[in-house]
Amino acid sequence: MKMLACAVIAEFNPFHNGHAYLLQKARQKTGADILIVVMSGNFVQRGEPALINKWERARLALMNGADLVVEIPTEYATDSAREFAHAGVTIANEMQSDYLAFGSETPNLDFEKESRIIDRLFNEQLSYNQNFASQLFHGTDIVNSNDILGINYAYWNAQSSKSKMQLLPIQRIGANHLDSNVGGDIASASSIRKSFLKNDQEYQSAVPTATKEVLAATKPVIWDDYWELLEYKILISSPESLSHVKNMNEGFEYRVLSMLDGSDSFLTLMKNLKTKRYTYTSIQRKMLNILLDIHNERFQLSKSRLLATNSLGRRYIKEKKLKNFLMTKVSKVDFATNYKITKRADEIYQLVSPYNWGKSPIITDDVKE
Amino acid sequence: MKMLACAVIAEFNPFHNGHAYLLQKARQKTGADILIVVMSGNFVQRGEPALINKWERARLALMNGADLVVEIPTEYATDSAREFAHAGVTIANEMQSDYLAFGSETPNLDFEKESRIIDRLFNEQLSYNQNFASQLFHGTDIVNSNDILGINYAYWNAQSSKSKMQLLPIQRIGANHLDSNVGGDIASASSIRKSFLKNDQEYQSAVPTATKEVLAATKPVIWDDYWELLEYKILISSPESLSHVKNMNEGFEYRVLSMLDGSDSFLTLMKNLKTKRYTYTSIQRKMLNILLDIHNERFQLSKSRLLATNSLGRRYIKEKKLKNFLMTKVSKVDFATNYKITKRADEIYQLVSPYNWGKSPIITDDVKE
Repeated sequence: MKMLACAVIAEFNPFHNGHAYLLQKARQKTGADILIVVMSGNFVQRGEPALINKWERARLALMNGADLVVEIPTEYATDSAREFAHAGVTIANEMQSDYLAFGSETPNLDFEKESRIIDRLFNEQLSYNQNFASQLFHGTDIVNSNDILGINYAYWNAQSSKSKMQLLPIQRIGANHLDSNVGGDIASASSIRKSFLKNDQEYQSAVPTATKEVLAATKPVIWDDYWELLEYKILISSPESLSHVKNMNEGFEYRVLSMLDGSDSFLTLMKNLKTKRYTYTSIQRKMLNILLDIHNERFQLSKSRLLATNSLGRRYIKEKKLKNFLMTKVSKVDFATNYKITKRADEIYQLVSPYNWGKSPIITDDVKE
Repeated sequence: MKMLACAVIAEFNPFHNGHAYLLQKARQKTGADILIVVMSGNFVQRGEPALINKWERARLALMNGADLVVEIPTEYATDSAREFAHAGVTIANEMQSDYLAFGSETPNLDFEKESRIIDRLFNEQLSYNQNFASQLFHGTDIVNSNDILGINYAYWNAQSSKSKMQLLPIQRIGANHLDSNVGGDIASASSIRKSFLKNDQEYQSAVPTATKEVLAATKPVIWDDYWELLEYKILISSPESLSHVKNMNEGFEYRVLSMLDGSDSFLTLMKNLKTKRYTYTSIQRKMLNILLDIHNERFQLSKSRLLATNSLGRRYIKEKKLKNFLMTKVSKVDFATNYKITKRADEIYQLVSPYNWGKSPIITDDVKE
């Protein structure tokens, strides 16, 4: 009998009760045999390091309902919502998933229909680097980043040349994504990060025990940890070399070079760089591209790395013949091509917070059947 | 009446009693009105950061007998003994110095005569990157780095198209330069650094009080402080980009890239990189060229920066019309050309140990007349 699969595109930064709820609902509503998590790696879409490394996050996902966790390569995971969604949907379709579940504030929205507005605007060659989504839906009811992602998922799913997934928006419960007031059992990842970094205990009720344990045992990573490296990288850069960094356009490289001198922290630099033209997040992504030395060239997304699986996931990989698409070991050729930037990002991540993972995927044998 | 000048090429890393003795003897023996110190900046000839920044070292020199302190640009100061000496002698001659004094274990050696062997060997195109000097004098009595420097000074002085200086070797007293046993009033700079970094008190009797105070008040800088930055710089380097780093030849870039993985400290990396072919110091200089992003191109040594002067020194600058050669303020053009690498090196130095110097030279009014 055909194994039914449902994918979730996620960051789990960090994994919290809302994520566990999403995975549970996704399985319930689709009756899927397999839950596939398509996850960003050590750097996330907001243009910053993940609080916890990708291996620990993949392990937490497996402990909390996922069967397979595969990675979005870093240059895609840290790109705009549009490109992030593109990569996520591409991988989910390559994984032959039947459904794509995602959290939404407005699950009754017709995402396919809304996605057509993107299509039109793309054709009008909207400037790529502006905060595309927020501009796009400015003045509409669609202001939540989850819904904007949902629309992007719908868009790329419709574009896919592979068999398309059925979209499954799942009503988000509890705190609003941007609500900074942690409390109760559900809170957004950003409010949990804030609470954790403030060293208060409030976030603890909003995450599974295993997340608490990982946060206590691992050195969490934030942008501040990379301030000296970023300073150094800018110091050794010429305007010409900076101009080749991804998304460094419209002379922004000169702004970066001139603002460094008066900046004594990452936050100060970000404040000094901020203009109306660019959102905070898009500038942060530029800084990440400088730090990780990501240039305008990119490799085609032809593979994804398997981070974690249980035995059900292994059966699925075999049945669907995913061995060519999924890297279980990263070969020398992969390290030099499609996985090159991710490898470098992982090494730079580990300058701050080393880990012992990475030789092979996390494989568990406990199958929930 | 013509002002008589004597130059000393130095690093003062850190300034100790032996340096004070050398300056005192130099003045005594030459009867010079002016003592000019031609000093390396924030990075020194051994291919490492100076323990104390150049401004504090220039100030200490002024307090201990110098009248003028001028800087050897970083790409010359951190080069081989041959190039270091070339730059030092060029600057001293541009400064119209009458004498060049230097410490020597064998002051009776005929430095001019010995220097002719260099001339011959240079013409035989001896491989530039091997430890030139130690090879050259292998099997002779000339093994001390001061004497090797002295011979190089003699060589370049003879080559100079300007009026030549009279060489004045001054007998070094007390500890041998490589003697690690600090004690008494005279000790070598390297044994003082070791004693200071071991946190013992032995070095204290070998340095003036002012040096002790500076060491206590300033964050001393060592290679370990740059380990993370060096790791990062190598991580973001391709074999191709590394091959353009100065003195990175004969495929050594591949060795650097392959050895990084198994190295968890600067010392481990150095040990992993060491081969018979290269001396420790020459490898250390390669690492510094990586860190400071010094490439094979260089600007002609056309200027030197004035670090410190007393009023006698100012009179000398005026009388000898040195304003074009000496930078008192570094212009935008200088920062983009002849002072470019030094500026970057200063900024990288300050990532570890910031200072408030640098807007203008240190000028004191106390004249010893």
